Amino acid sequence: MRRHIVTVVGAGRSATEADTKMARILGGLIAQHGWVLLSGGTALGIMDAVNQGASEAGGLTIGIIAQADDSKMSKYVDLPIFTGMLSGRNIINALSGEVMIACGVAPGTLSEIALALRADKDVVFISKESDDKAFIKKVGGEKVHLVDGPEEAVSLVEKLLETEQ
Amino acid sequence: MRRHIVTVVGAGRSATEADTKMARILGGLIAQHGWVLLSGGTALGIMDAVNQGASEAGGLTIGIIAQADDSKMSKYVDLPIFTGMLSGRNIINALSGEVMIACGVAPGTLSEIALALRADKDVVFISKESDDKAFIKKVGGEKVHLVDGPEEAVSLVEKLLETEQ
Amino acid sequence: MRRHIVTVVGAGRSATEADTKMARILGGLIAQHGWVLLSGGTALGIMDAVNQGASEAGGLTIGIIAQADDSKMSKYVDLPIFTGMLSGRNIINALSGEVMIACGVAPGTLSEIALALRADKDVVFISKESDDKAFIKKVGGEKVHLVDGPEEAVSLVEKLLETEQ
Amino acid sequence: MRRHIVTVVGAGRSATEADTKMARILGGLIAQHGWVLLSGGTALGIMDAVNQGASEAGGLTIGIIAQADDSKMSKYVDLPIFTGMLSGRNIINALSGEVMIACGVAPGTLSEIALALRADKDVVFISKESDDKAFIKKVGGEKVHLVDGPEEAVSLVEKLLETEQ
Repeated sequence: MRRHIVTVVGAGRSATEADTKMARILGGLIAQHGWVLLSGGTALGIMDAVNQGASEAGGLTIGIIAQADDSKMSKYVDLPIFTGMLSGRNIINALSGEVMIACGVAPGTLSEIALALRADKDVVFISKESDDKAFIKKVGGEKVHLVDGPEEAVSLVEKLLETEQ
Repeated sequence: MRRHIVTVVGAGRSATEADTKMARILGGLIAQHGWVLLSGGTALGIMDAVNQGASEAGGLTIGIIAQADDSKMSKYVDLPIFTGMLSGRNIINALSGEVMIACGVAPGTLSEIALALRADKDVVFISKESDDKAFIKKVGGEKVHLVDGPEEAVSLVEKLLETEQ
Repeated sequence: MRRHIVTVVGAGRSATEADTKMARILGGLIAQHGWVLLSGGTALGIMDAVNQGASEAGGLTIGIIAQADDSKMSKYVDLPIFTGMLSGRNIINALSGEVMIACGVAPGTLSEIALALRADKDVVFISKESDDKAFIKKVGGEKVHLVDGPEEAVSLVEKLLETEQ
Repeated sequence: MRRHIVTVVGAGRSATEADTKMARILGGLIAQHGWVLLSGGTALGIMDAVNQGASEAGGLTIGIIAQADDSKMSKYVDLPIFTGMLSGRNIINALSGEVMIACGVAPGTLSEIALALRADKDVVFISKESDDKAFIKKVGGEKVHLVDGPEEAVSLVEKLLETEQ
């Protein structure tokens, strides 16, 4: 009855077209595995794209919304959780996924990675930047898993969810 | 795609057997209407019972968990959102339901009713105590809807959700 | 070195002139006793007035600000704590005072009273409405202390702070 | 009347003796400049040491406490603000200082740096690790100021506070 929840974090306004294309693929893969997608739920960048990908593949999506209403929310969020806490809601993103998949190191995203590591959560880090990878690995040690793209990320999450049980 | 979410709040430890029986019926009715149940998700009293009722009727249940883990969580929660904020999470319960159904005036419950009214949300208040009803009505005015039991509560929620659209 | 902190909660926009006059007196008395005033810190109603009273009497004032900046803040707040959590910050008001003095039952204020009682804090309730007094007393039992005005409130706080030590 | 507040963040349990010695000096310098110190207020590592340094130099100290009570609190905190939000309180540390001084990149500290940058705050980063410095600078751009020790940090804060006015 309890469903697997996977958190995805990544840039809003600063996401590139390549980022959002990757995020749509990632969302689709999460849905195909039967996992529930949890994200910040904003109608921007990686957050919007990963929700679109999951939604179009028939998945269930939860948005932990920074505002108290849906004015900035992705239309691909099925279950909005309104916090009104701005970036204060990042801790909830970090705690609520069994695993976090993180795309890049924009400040908001970096705060979510760090909060997840603080709470001893596994973080699967997708990046093509080798210095970013080295830094996140240094901070998080064995809880950080470095990958190059969405397919590799999702098969790692699959293993991590099996190990937990 | 976006689902209707109804928040239910009520006493944990201080709930009576009559309270929990009523809450199981309420949860069942919410599920039968196809609404998603959102609650504090604790394995106690009204929270546990309303989740059980919804779950056994095939509904989907979200728990906004006061702890950072599932140690005190109802086993009838499908989608746990971990906050680690103790009663700080009550604001999220208040903001995230389109309508709140409140059972009684234990301190935690009263805080959720008051936060919902502060955010201009409709509150359907189930109680047999006439002085409690009079007080909540005085505080919340036309946003407070007084009812005697779960059936009446649910048909009121039905009307409120129709009006919103 | 650690200072006594007293939380004051009360209506913003809906406060009457009599309320704000009373709150200025209350703030002055808190400062004269050497206690630090903690409030929501908004530039409205009882919050603004109690900070003015404390500040003009030479006291130290802390504001737990609902916004992430000082755009709606009382100019009588010495130490602003920015939360960006809207009413989510009410839990901090409830937890951070050794005692809470509450004026009236506007929804925001009522949520703070209820959160304080939930956390087993003493609440000194100033009101002239006998039904409000009866209700708050019923909810909070021996943790609720009913008084008619600021002088009586402050001498009760004095006793409560002595008892704690 | 409104006081300058400077946030200091840094490791708890993982702080070295050199870190805590540096933090005591930093706290002393903050107090000597007449600024109020704001920190997470835990009785560990850099947090405890910076409060000790400020307190022994006659400064005023605010602790944004992760717990709902003082069980893990530094005895050098004058004004405890209890949140009960665990790492959820990190956003308050980030928002409430006019400037943040950050020591190192332990996960909790890194989340506070990232949240401050997300809120467009200046961060003065004290570190001897050149790759950490390069990474934080890359994430935060012109809002990040790299320094080698407490004296340099404090003279930078002095300039930043002057510029703001």
